[in-house]
Amino acid sequence: MAKQERAIRTRRAILEAAGAVFDEHGYMSTTIAMVLERAEVTKGALYFHFASKEALARAVLDEQVPFGAVPPQPCKLQEIVDMTFVVGQRLLYNSLLRGSVRLAVDQETPSGIDHGAPFRQWAQALTRLLELARDRGELLPTVKPSETVELLVGSFTGIQLMSRALTDRADLADRLAVMWAHILPSIAVPGLLPGLDARADRGARVLASLEERAAS
Amino acid sequence: MAKQERAIRTRRAILEAAGAVFDEHGYMSTTIAMVLERAEVTKGALYFHFASKEALARAVLDEQVPFGAVPPQPCKLQEIVDMTFVVGQRLLYNSLLRGSVRLAVDQETPSGIDHGAPFRQWAQALTRLLELARDRGELLPTVKPSETVELLVGSFTGIQLMSRALTDRADLADRLAVMWAHILPSIAVPGLLPGLDARADRGARVLASLEERAAS
Repeated sequence: MAKQERAIRTRRAILEAAGAVFDEHGYMSTTIAMVLERAEVTKGALYFHFASKEALARAVLDEQVPFGAVPPQPCKLQEIVDMTFVVGQRLLYNSLLRGSVRLAVDQETPSGIDHGAPFRQWAQALTRLLELARDRGELLPTVKPSETVELLVGSFTGIQLMSRALTDRADLADRLAVMWAHILPSIAVPGLLPGLDARADRGARVLASLEERAAS
Repeated sequence: MAKQERAIRTRRAILEAAGAVFDEHGYMSTTIAMVLERAEVTKGALYFHFASKEALARAVLDEQVPFGAVPPQPCKLQEIVDMTFVVGQRLLYNSLLRGSVRLAVDQETPSGIDHGAPFRQWAQALTRLLELARDRGELLPTVKPSETVELLVGSFTGIQLMSRALTDRADLADRLAVMWAHILPSIAVPGLLPGLDARADRGARVLASLEERAAS
């Protein structure tokens, strides 16, 4: 394994360990020692990549948007729907994503760490897509993409949080389907509605197709 | 002042102090001593009302729904809209409400404390109102009140959280107006829409009318 590739893998292992520890213990109770033990790397390796616990937290916060990766769709609104379901699905088992969400959501995350960053990053990524949807004639003329996107990011945040509090996220996909059933008719041109797939099992199906593609 | 009235006032002072301390420090870092100092009551008085920090947290969590009190409206959907804007407005300055929201939202709140309680209490109160709205013919026939209510509670939670993270809740009322602009057309009969008031300053206006009424 080339030196550079090894460094990338080590960095990733540290990030994933940090995400898991932040998810379980929150920012304040997390120590570098706990991350070292989980990642099974040396202190030197960790400090080579991350100067401090703050730097680790910032890096974990910056890892959210890649979890929204989905196959491109001819209908851009469908692609946005897919991102929400896939992130919901990945929240069930990916502890780096869960740790990142906890850091963004918990009020204990110190103000020196920009826990608003993931909100802005999601908004930016989704606004680009929703503007594309608008340019293709998918949206009602009343829609302001940036406003709708801020609503989507905020609603998603609260819905996953409520789902975690009440059912340990077991009903998250159902709740997302309800969200889309209420929001799609207010943003999509009516002719698009019957063809959009925002059923609760959408995330699982998109992920299965991604895995198939990766395996072939 | 009668003995009983004094006891009620002392209990309230302790709750308000606890809310403020939980809001600033979170569950784990809060101590009974911090609450005592804030409330300016004796240890004996606090333990007379609350046996432990856990009991204090539970009582603070149970205080959310009363903050949704609004004047009754002929249109029940308007009353629900009003509750969201009034709670949003009260979040700006009421530290008991803020502390209660933080306890419900932060992942660090121990699982022994039922931090899902406020979510269920809001859902219960709002479902009753939305069923009333349905019985009065205010809703589209596709609406399932309990589903819509779960969405509203989840979305509100995330929207206030995102608003806190990005603007210290300064833009919360604007975000709530965007939420309603997206959800009302999916739930209200069309003839009701022009008469519904879900503008960003709705909360401030409802609170002003409540204060006027209290003063007269």
